[in-house]
Amino acid sequence: MDTGYKVSMSITQPVPKSAVERWHAESDVVVVGYGGAGACVALEAKRGGASVLILERASGGGGTTAMCGGHVYAGGGTSVQRACGFEDDAEQLFQYLMACAPFQDEAKARRYANSSVAHFEWLREQGVPFNSNFHPHRTTLQLDDSCLVWTGNEYVWPFSTRAKAAPRGHKAAGPFDAGHLIMKALMGQVERLGVPVVCDARVESLVVDDDTVCGVVATQFGERKAYRARHGVVLTAGGFVMNHAMIRNHAPDLAEHVIWHGSPGDVGDGVRLGMSAGGAAIHMSEVFVTLPFYPPESLTFGILVNATGQRFINEDCYHARIGHAAMHQPGGRVWLIVDDASFGIPAINSDIHHLGRTDLQFEHVATEGSVAELETAIGLPAGALVHTVGQYNRWAAERQDPLLHKTAKWLRPLEPPFAALDCSLGKAPYIGFTLGGLSTLPSGEVLDDANAVVPGLYAAGRTTCGLPRWSGGYASGLSVADATFFGREAGRTLAAAAAAVRG
Amino acid sequence: MDTGYKVSMSITQPVPKSAVERWHAESDVVVVGYGGAGACVALEAKRGGASVLILERASGGGGTTAMCGGHVYAGGGTSVQRACGFEDDAEQLFQYLMACAPFQDEAKARRYANSSVAHFEWLREQGVPFNSNFHPHRTTLQLDDSCLVWTGNEYVWPFSTRAKAAPRGHKAAGPFDAGHLIMKALMGQVERLGVPVVCDARVESLVVDDDTVCGVVATQFGERKAYRARHGVVLTAGGFVMNHAMIRNHAPDLAEHVIWHGSPGDVGDGVRLGMSAGGAAIHMSEVFVTLPFYPPESLTFGILVNATGQRFINEDCYHARIGHAAMHQPGGRVWLIVDDASFGIPAINSDIHHLGRTDLQFEHVATEGSVAELETAIGLPAGALVHTVGQYNRWAAERQDPLLHKTAKWLRPLEPPFAALDCSLGKAPYIGFTLGGLSTLPSGEVLDDANAVVPGLYAAGRTTCGLPRWSGGYASGLSVADATFFGREAGRTLAAAAAAVRG
Repeated sequence: MDTGYKVSMSITQPVPKSAVERWHAESDVVVVGYGGAGACVALEAKRGGASVLILERASGGGGTTAMCGGHVYAGGGTSVQRACGFEDDAEQLFQYLMACAPFQDEAKARRYANSSVAHFEWLREQGVPFNSNFHPHRTTLQLDDSCLVWTGNEYVWPFSTRAKAAPRGHKAAGPFDAGHLIMKALMGQVERLGVPVVCDARVESLVVDDDTVCGVVATQFGERKAYRARHGVVLTAGGFVMNHAMIRNHAPDLAEHVIWHGSPGDVGDGVRLGMSAGGAAIHMSEVFVTLPFYPPESLTFGILVNATGQRFINEDCYHARIGHAAMHQPGGRVWLIVDDASFGIPAINSDIHHLGRTDLQFEHVATEGSVAELETAIGLPAGALVHTVGQYNRWAAERQDPLLHKTAKWLRPLEPPFAALDCSLGKAPYIGFTLGGLSTLPSGEVLDDANAVVPGLYAAGRTTCGLPRWSGGYASGLSVADATFFGREAGRTLAAAAAAVRG
Repeated sequence: MDTGYKVSMSITQPVPKSAVERWHAESDVVVVGYGGAGACVALEAKRGGASVLILERASGGGGTTAMCGGHVYAGGGTSVQRACGFEDDAEQLFQYLMACAPFQDEAKARRYANSSVAHFEWLREQGVPFNSNFHPHRTTLQLDDSCLVWTGNEYVWPFSTRAKAAPRGHKAAGPFDAGHLIMKALMGQVERLGVPVVCDARVESLVVDDDTVCGVVATQFGERKAYRARHGVVLTAGGFVMNHAMIRNHAPDLAEHVIWHGSPGDVGDGVRLGMSAGGAAIHMSEVFVTLPFYPPESLTFGILVNATGQRFINEDCYHARIGHAAMHQPGGRVWLIVDDASFGIPAINSDIHHLGRTDLQFEHVATEGSVAELETAIGLPAGALVHTVGQYNRWAAERQDPLLHKTAKWLRPLEPPFAALDCSLGKAPYIGFTLGGLSTLPSGEVLDDANAVVPGLYAAGRTTCGLPRWSGGYASGLSVADATFFGREAGRTLAAAAAAVRG
């Protein structure tokens, strides 16, 4: 995909401090990348008394946060949850976050669960607008300015067995994609604090003093400039979804079949800078991959089947859990089977807006009067789909799904005529971004692959591997929550370090 | 798992040449690691006129090649294939290798396919003993000294649709594990050529002259020594299977459920050294994971089902393709359903020998007179297994498997009584090793993540990502073939470079 933006791809090995002739500028903290994570690092570090400088390779701040839907995943009993009558507490949020990846970072999950209510209020205090109402429908993105919505797998199996369900997606108060409202507020605060922001500056190497990171070298309009960081460099430069070579290296079986989605700067600079100083990049093969087959939510009454005509996932899951399961089916071949009452054309809400593309669609491949005719029409083994639908319908009549545990709400026998929508990998619009990145402590400190801290190096947001680390357990708003919260944590860590030296 | 061997885990950032006070030794080529790949680098480089030095962290050579089964995957019409009456050619081998991973390295596949016959003969010339007979049974490792055997997915669907099938596993002529015979021959040749081998020397950093790798620093009995490489350093230090921190970073969902298997030196030193100089590590999440549920081969007449009671893979696949499919089933829960005629206890041949463990077994969890009773006994949804077996049996009577394409040879209706063996991840012995590693050209040159060559740096064997790169398409002998062949290629590249400078 042409990003419409020519990016330099090279990251050089760290430059020794002795090779720096002069520092173009100095500050306690140098932040590389001005999206949601970078803004929050700057706010906390500056308010904690440290001097801060932000470098951004684009011509202005915003990053990927500014182009996202605008959900923040928050819970434990936020003001909005309470206003809408939903009970939640920190322990349930923690248990849910732990269920979001079999290899979750427990320390980060605990930290965020305990602070999520306060973090949400902090975002409101920065001026991010949120209404206090609830959106009751199953969708990928509210088209209105409503706030609270189910954005994960909270009430579906097996998550419902791990934690008490509550809706936790809090959308900023704007129609369609509203991430820009989050960045508008945060950047307003950064400006108010007088934090210098240098744009059009691409950081191409770290500067090291022995093994300690103490600055960066950036290129701005062809000129190389060194910036000294007295206490730390914070990498908040996004993920690597727009770097197709890296995608091929780390998620090779998906590289050519997924529509990769991010801001033009998501070329892995942050991850690669961190690795150049010995930082470990972890879970680099994990990618968010959505199969946004709803809305309309009525399609949830349908069933997803693979090339053997068998179901493989409870269809009421979050769209990226569906995508994760679907892409692992034999040959990536998957169909959504629906009846007349549940039929609709998937709207691909958010992504049409994100991608500026209207050609994304699910193909309606057949409508037949019987399941037997449908299985023939789409080339499934004789009798396989007949059995699957027959079995499904018998149980659905009793509002049960012993096979895959779809919730009763979405169970209803399918009745003729039947239609099939092609949801196969490589045909349907699977949309993805990267979840792997630098290994960090909750404090933002970057770790090497022996779990030792790389001195002077910090990171947050999708440059790191954070709370969102598995498509099978993603929830809308988890990445923005992680980026903004752990950005703040890194900022506070550095403010404390600077204060300790000032004495 | 305690490897019985305390390993240092740290790899430091590259040391600038200016910081090296004196070189302990110099040679054209420095080889890091003395297994199959390292030995072959040394042989070709030395015979091509270059001076060579080998550094090995253990107290002697051998590496993982010395402890493997002893298969070399070779085809295209080897002397043994011809002696046994099997037709094969380079194009069919190439097509098969391409089918071995959806993200295969085409250049490496082409290079090996075209040279496989010659490479096999070269191994014979080095003194590796091979008989010329064929072993007709489906097994994981011949217990005798027979040579040719089916070791991959050649005749099973869908591989059979991609290339004409031929057996290509060539086992060195010794009973049980015979990898040591390969290393005995190769190391004998290295010794004959007078190549110096420094053992107990762990390389902990590369030395760089600007961006060019020009040496290494190794620690031997507590003393640090620098070794200069005039033309190149070759990393042949194995994979990272024994480095559990790295396994957790790259294959987190499997880390705790698989028995990781390798030599004690497989701690990722080679991969990490390469990365320290900017080399790209690719496909690090790809691991070989076997579910060795045969021999006895009669178990292939059984069916594998998941927690929904549904089949998911043709059971005649290679054991690591089975493992790959099984570990992706919901909750990792899998059972092998067999009848009286096909029943047996899996022997886990090779791995008992490799691991020195006799506690590895598949649990026989139930025997019942009917499928309905069996599905109840193992807790499957009511009616699910009854349908699966009924459908399977109806087709098997006609020796067909329209659902998953098991070959006719292994199709036979299952008859009561029925038994179930637990093949679930975390219960059955899944055994694994790593397939990801440095990105290299067929010449052995290491690439960075923009696909530019890292000057002076080469690699081969499991330190690289080579022909074996996907469990879903692994074949026994593929790793040794890749390590020895591309080790030779790297040696030849360096010999040519050294000769060019000598003029």
